[in-house]
This record gives sequence, C-alpha cells and structure tokens, in this order.
Amino acid sequence: MTAPTIDDIRDASARIAPHVIRTPVFTSRLLDSLAGTRLLLKCETFQRTGSFKARGACNAVFRLGADDAGRGVATHSSGNHAAALAYAAARRGIPAHVVIPTTAPRVKLDAVRAYGAHVVPCEPTLADRERTLRAVVDETGACVVHPYDDPDVIAGAGTAALELLTDHPETGLVITPVGGGGLLSGTAIASRALDPAREVWGAEPETVDDAYRALASGRRQQNATAASIADGLLTELSDRTFSILSCLATGIVRVTDAEIVDAMGLLFTRTKLVVETSAATALAGVLALARTRALPDTVGIVLSGGNADPARLPFDRGAAG
Amino acid sequence: MTAPTIDDIRDASARIAPHVIRTPVFTSRLLDSLAGTRLLLKCETFQRTGSFKARGACNAVFRLGADDAGRGVATHSSGNHAAALAYAAARRGIPAHVVIPTTAPRVKLDAVRAYGAHVVPCEPTLADRERTLRAVVDETGACVVHPYDDPDVIAGAGTAALELLTDHPETGLVITPVGGGGLLSGTAIASRALDPAREVWGAEPETVDDAYRALASGRRQQNATAASIADGLLTELSDRTFSILSCLATGIVRVTDAEIVDAMGLLFTRTKLVVETSAATALAGVLALARTRALPDTVGIVLSGGNADPARLPFDRGAAG
Repeated sequence: MTAPTIDDIRDASARIAPHVIRTPVFTSRLLDSLAGTRLLLKCETFQRTGSFKARGACNAVFRLGADDAGRGVATHSSGNHAAALAYAAARRGIPAHVVIPTTAPRVKLDAVRAYGAHVVPCEPTLADRERTLRAVVDETGACVVHPYDDPDVIAGAGTAALELLTDHPETGLVITPVGGGGLLSGTAIASRALDPAREVWGAEPETVDDAYRALASGRRQQNATAASIADGLLTELSDRTFSILSCLATGIVRVTDAEIVDAMGLLFTRTKLVVETSAATALAGVLALARTRALPDTVGIVLSGGNADPARLPFDRGAAG
Repeated sequence: MTAPTIDDIRDASARIAPHVIRTPVFTSRLLDSLAGTRLLLKCETFQRTGSFKARGACNAVFRLGADDAGRGVATHSSGNHAAALAYAAARRGIPAHVVIPTTAPRVKLDAVRAYGAHVVPCEPTLADRERTLRAVVDETGACVVHPYDDPDVIAGAGTAALELLTDHPETGLVITPVGGGGLLSGTAIASRALDPAREVWGAEPETVDDAYRALASGRRQQNATAASIADGLLTELSDRTFSILSCLATGIVRVTDAEIVDAMGLLFTRTKLVVETSAATALAGVLALARTRALPDTVGIVLSGGNADPARLPFDRGAAG
C-alpha cells in the first residue's frame, strides 16, 4: 500500500499539464465577510469534465506503459470519475470501459459516451458492478483505475492544491470535501509538504461521517446510510486514504445538508459559480469552522466540481426569502 | 449630444480600475465546436454587482466634481444599473437615491439597499418614475446618472471590450447584447478604434428588435411589446446610442427566446457559467450568425451579467432532453 509523495504530485502536475486546466482562483468579498477571513476558491468547477477528477484520471492513464495502455482502462462508476476516465483515455487514444448500473440517469451515460467510452451496463448492486468489471477486465485486459484508492489518482488530485499553494503560499488552511478521501489525501500531502504548519481539513456531510469517526477512533468506519444531498461524498475511506489522512489531516468538520444547500446557493447568487453539492460542502465546512474559532488569514477551498443538474438546484426552494 | 472616444474609454479604464474587476476571459472547446470558431467569453458575470453596469456607474460617479458628488446621485431603475450606481456611490462615499416601483421584486430592493442606497418607492408607471425622480433631484440636488444615455456610462461600458482586445488583439468580431445600446456603443467605439476592420455586432431578441429596425431604416424605432425573456433588453436606443451605432456597428442579429434559453443552458451545463438572459442573448447571436456565414477566427462575446434568479432558470424545463 503506497502513498504518493510531493515529488509524485509535482511529476503528476507536469504529466497532466497538457490535458487539464490550471483552474482560476476566485475571491468574494461577501464570502470573506461571512467567514471572517480571506477565502481563495480554487475553481475545479472549470476543470475539464467539470471536476477535479480529470487530474487523477489523466495522471493514472498517462503513467501507464504503452503495452498496458493499449489494452485500455476500466472502472465502475456513474459519477465524475467515469467521465474523467473516459476523457483521459480519449486524450491518450486508448479504450475506456465504464461499468454503469442500468438505473443511472441517462444524462450521465450520455456524458461518458460523449467522451467515446464503452459503457457496460450492470445491475445496481455493488456485487454486480464488481462482477461485471471483473468480466470486462478478463475479456479486455484493461487496467482498472479506482476512483480514489490509487496512488496515481491521489497524486493527480493533489495537483489542484499544488497549484493553489504555489500561487498563494500564504494560505494557512486548506479544506476540501471528503468522500473516499482521494482529493483530501492528495491535498494533505501537497499542503503539509510545502508547509508542515499548514492546517488541512476535510468537510463531510454529518449523515455519512465515516471519515470523521475514523480519524476520531483510529479505525476505518462504515456509513449506516447514504442519506445526504452530497451524492459524491457517500463513499468511505480506503485503508490507503485512511492511513494518509490519519497522518496528515488536521481534522474533519461535519455539516448538515441544509448548510450544504445554503453554501451552494451563496456561491450561485453571490459569486456566479455553479458548484455541485460536494464542492458546496467544503465552503459549508469553512463557515462552520469559522463559527467555532478564528481561522488563519488566508483559507483555500478546493471547489471540487460543478456538475450540478440545472433542473434540480436544491436552493431553488425559497431562494427569494 | 456627445459620444465618448477611445481616449475617454482609456481614461475610464484607469479611473475605475480600483473599483471593478478585470474580469477573466473563458474559453470552451464545446462552444467553439458549435460556433465553428474560437470564442472568447469576457465574463462580466464576475464583475462587481454581477454585471458590466458597475463599469459605467463607477466612471460616471468618479468623474463628478467634489461639489456635485457631495449632493449624491440618483436614477430610476430596478435592474443592474440600480445596484451598480448604489455600489459606485458607496465606493465614493456619497448618497445614492434609487427610484424603484413598488411592484419590483423584494430581492431587487434588498440588493440596492445592501449597497447602502436610499430607495424611493414610486408607482409602476414611467410617468410616476420620472416624476418621483424629479422630486428627488429637486430636494437633494443629486446628479441623475442615466443607465445608458450618458457618455461617461458608455465610456465605462466600453472598458470591458478594451480589456478583451488589449489581451486578444486578434479578435476579429465582437458581439454584445443590445437593449438601450450603452454596452454596444462603448464596445463599438473601443473595438473599431483599435482595429477599424473589426466587426461589431449587437444581439437582440426578435420581439423587441428596435435596434435592428433602427439601423435598417436609418431612424429610431419603438418596440411594440415587452414580450421577451431577456428582461434587460426591453429598452430602446436613445438618439446618442442610435447615432453611435449607425456609424460603428456592423449589424444586429436577432434571436428567439428559445435560442436565448438554449444558450443560457449551454453556458450553465458546459462552462459552469451563471449568466442572465441578456448575456445568453449574445452567445445565441453568435450561434445564429455562425449558421449563416463563416466567422472570423476569433470572436469575442461580452457576457454582460450573471444576475439570474436561481428559482427561475428557464432551462430547468426539460434540460435532461
């Protein structure tokens, strides 16, 4: 079980540079006044495929040797990682096989297919997803790229923080959402390597708070439900990400779905940023932290993605209030 | 009746620099493929107060002499100009009086009040708006700042194009939405002064196409209805903007409300930009032009503002189709 180093993240940054966007950092005086400090919004909403996942997927795909690459890559996912892996494979000109449950929204299938990936339907159970993925791999020899439990994916994810902290080394605290922990792990490795005194926080929905409980108890934990609006954060830490975060994360801050929705609405109306619920969770986490303590003078937030469904913006309801 | 020059726009740019954002220019490969050319999106959505109107208002407010400024500024508007004038006055530390009909949405009043402006209610008729504004001016001596029929406001509006063309002088065509014509006039003056061969287009809803008919006929025209989703573009050219555009605009392209809604949805889902209907009109105009002719290699679009109501995104309906 290996963890990437800051050198791996630097290598990843150079490797993926032709394929990803060096996303802009936004600021907002209104948000600063709410948080009582200066916030730097690293806008992975504008990343290729609409989320930071393009970074890890590109790093993993472009690290493959020519022979492995020729057999293609595979994953089971219907979310941002699926689109990101499809995009990365298309950039390298190799096949991508994506196992997606038959119940997934049509629009998600279309997004993956639009990047030229081969969509393999499966039943909507974890067992059938894994069985189908194994069958794909047996047949094609494709290399499985896990959405977060992979050192190359983690190193790629860490490049967002590397960019932020290269441009803004004064950042005293960095926060990202935490689901499986890939983004937070890469962020923590980059952030602490560049400044060991820097705080690194994860933000997690309180109903699926396995990361919070894992770091508090010193053991991996399971989530009892999948009842959060932040549908990208329902996954649990792996042994790898648990181990990294145990060493390097300052803490996990838990937020309610209502706080996530409020943060999403704030970003839409006041900064004109379209963010998905995961990204809003990170801002909600900062605002929650700010209610309990003084924050460093500069706080970096990785706004992880922008793939929100315009037909289902949760802050529609009562937004004029 | 004076029109600003490129020197006035340069002066405006220096004058307002401390108070406005030098907004970013975004690109999108998907939009490029739809338009068949390279599009540069000048994102006034991220401007202070959420629209380019902050530029003109700041230029007008900071050009006032100390005595005039001390008596404050006034306007009648419930839209972006009202918030922009309130913001500009707050930056200079002078009073702003904004006449707003009692029927205006509460959220618009709140936005203007949030910048510290004095809101003066009136009946929802043009006659009462003007009568109330005159009364405010008689009482306070405030200087009226028109939303577009003012050379300082036009010069300020032109600074967005000046920034775009300074960074991207290869831009062969610039397009903006056209309502009263202030943004398009300032854009045309800047664009043609920097390169007389550059095309300058306005984009206008086909139901309120007074600018199209005015340039076609050589006379100012009236709109018979206010039936367009682009509620920021219902106004008509003034003598001043008509005169400027008659000399400097290449043409006006008309689009349907359905095209505007499609463009707004495209910008949301594919570029994660929140734009208001006026801004979407400009992209819709480019796509309409692209269906009829080859465009220059680089096309600049001024995305005029982002003050869309999240509870009423028109592309909600059937977005998954």
